[in-house]
Amino acid sequence: MSGLVQLVPNRTLLTNSPKESRQLAMKVARVVIEATQPDTSRRERLRPAYAEDPALLIALEQNVALEFAVIAAANNYWKK
Amino acid sequence: MSGLVQLVPNRTLLTNSPKESRQLAMKVARVVIEATQPDTSRRERLRPAYAEDPALLIALEQNVALEFAVIAAANNYWKK
Amino acid sequence: MSGLVQLVPNRTLLTNSPKESRQLAMKVARVVIEATQPDTSRRERLRPAYAEDPALLIALEQNVALEFAVIAAANNYWKK
Amino acid sequence: MSGLVQLVPNRTLLTNSPKESRQLAMKVARVVIEATQPDTSRRERLRPAYAEDPALLIALEQNVALEFAVIAAANNYWKK
Amino acid sequence: MSGLVQLVPNRTLLTNSPKESRQLAMKVARVVIEATQPDTSRRERLRPAYAEDPALLIALEQNVALEFAVIAAANNYWKK
Amino acid sequence: MSGLVQLVPNRTLLTNSPKESRQLAMKVARVVIEATQPDTSRRERLRPAYAEDPALLIALEQNVALEFAVIAAANNYWKK
Repeated sequence: MSGLVQLVPNRTLLTNSPKESRQLAMKVARVVIEATQPDTSRRERLRPAYAEDPALLIALEQNVALEFAVIAAANNYWKK
Repeated sequence: MSGLVQLVPNRTLLTNSPKESRQLAMKVARVVIEATQPDTSRRERLRPAYAEDPALLIALEQNVALEFAVIAAANNYWKK
Repeated sequence: MSGLVQLVPNRTLLTNSPKESRQLAMKVARVVIEATQPDTSRRERLRPAYAEDPALLIALEQNVALEFAVIAAANNYWKK
Repeated sequence: MSGLVQLVPNRTLLTNSPKESRQLAMKVARVVIEATQPDTSRRERLRPAYAEDPALLIALEQNVALEFAVIAAANNYWKK
Repeated sequence: MSGLVQLVPNRTLLTNSPKESRQLAMKVARVVIEATQPDTSRRERLRPAYAEDPALLIALEQNVALEFAVIAAANNYWKK
Repeated sequence: MSGLVQLVPNRTLLTNSPKESRQLAMKVARVVIEATQPDTSRRERLRPAYAEDPALLIALEQNVALEFAVIAAANNYWKK
């Protein structure tokens, strides 16, 4: 299931900035969905649902928030 | 996907006050939605749904709460 | 959007007691909803939905719990 | 709205045991619902919905879990 | 409501292993549902819904995750 | 209920990398679902629902995020 997808891009949670961490949060969330539905064409068929349904857009955003919380803690919130 | 949107406005989670952090929490949440549905006119068509549907309003508020939790921790809760 | 509403009443997360913090948690949650749907009369029309729908009541309570978690941490849980 | 209900029973998050904290978590969650729908008879009419609908039972349990997380932290997890 | 059910089995959050904590997390979540719907036969009638509905299975798992987070922190993640 | 399934694979939350932890997070989440619906053939029948329904895919991802948060903290975010 997770053999083909790279569960954590760049193999680390450490990033240089909050912005990079938001990107990482979006990626790690997406990767779980890819691992659960590995068929690219089926996933593509689901994509309009995400992008057009307000409830799904909000739910996706929530997942990014949750992933970001961990990444931000791992980076000690970029405090010097 | 995140090329055109600024994922973290002002590039930092540090703010001067809880109020600024609430604003930032609302912005970072919105930006993920913009990155997922980058078509402005489609997003505008979805907007009434957010503003009129009690379940979506509550869900949006929850996301702000989750984003705020991270920003507040990053600012050490504005303790001196 | 957040120009007219006061996102954090009293401008601080510090409170004197858990009870005050619960009140603050309820207020900051409500304010996000007001910022998203700033039309008072439309919001009033949505209010019965919140108060009569068990799922929405539970969802609202969840948001208060999430906001309270941050406020409680900001107050170091009122430990002396 | 929160004038008549006691938002935090016993005015403190400190408890003597995990069991007491679970009870407190259930109470503080219920009180928010009472504050949002202060009409007792309407609330009573909603009660069967909570008790018979699996999704609502699970949602209620989730709120207790979230409230408990804060109370447990406030009590430093009852570590000596 | 919580007079007959044991809200925290073994009266402590301390466990010997992550596995025991997962079991405890599943138990404390179940107990809240029992306290909300104390009628065993009605609860039994709801059980197929949990076990056959993917959304409810996922929601139940989420609650276990949330309860586990607290128990794991209480045990300092079983670090020596 | 949890007699036959291994609630925490490898009996520890400690891992060597974020990637391993993501895998562990996916496994521990799945195991709770197996414990709740132990009938393999019924679970298999539910599987297409997870993989084809955008809302369920997002919900599953959220659970992985929540489990991962605990595992990451247990590993002190792989800081040296």
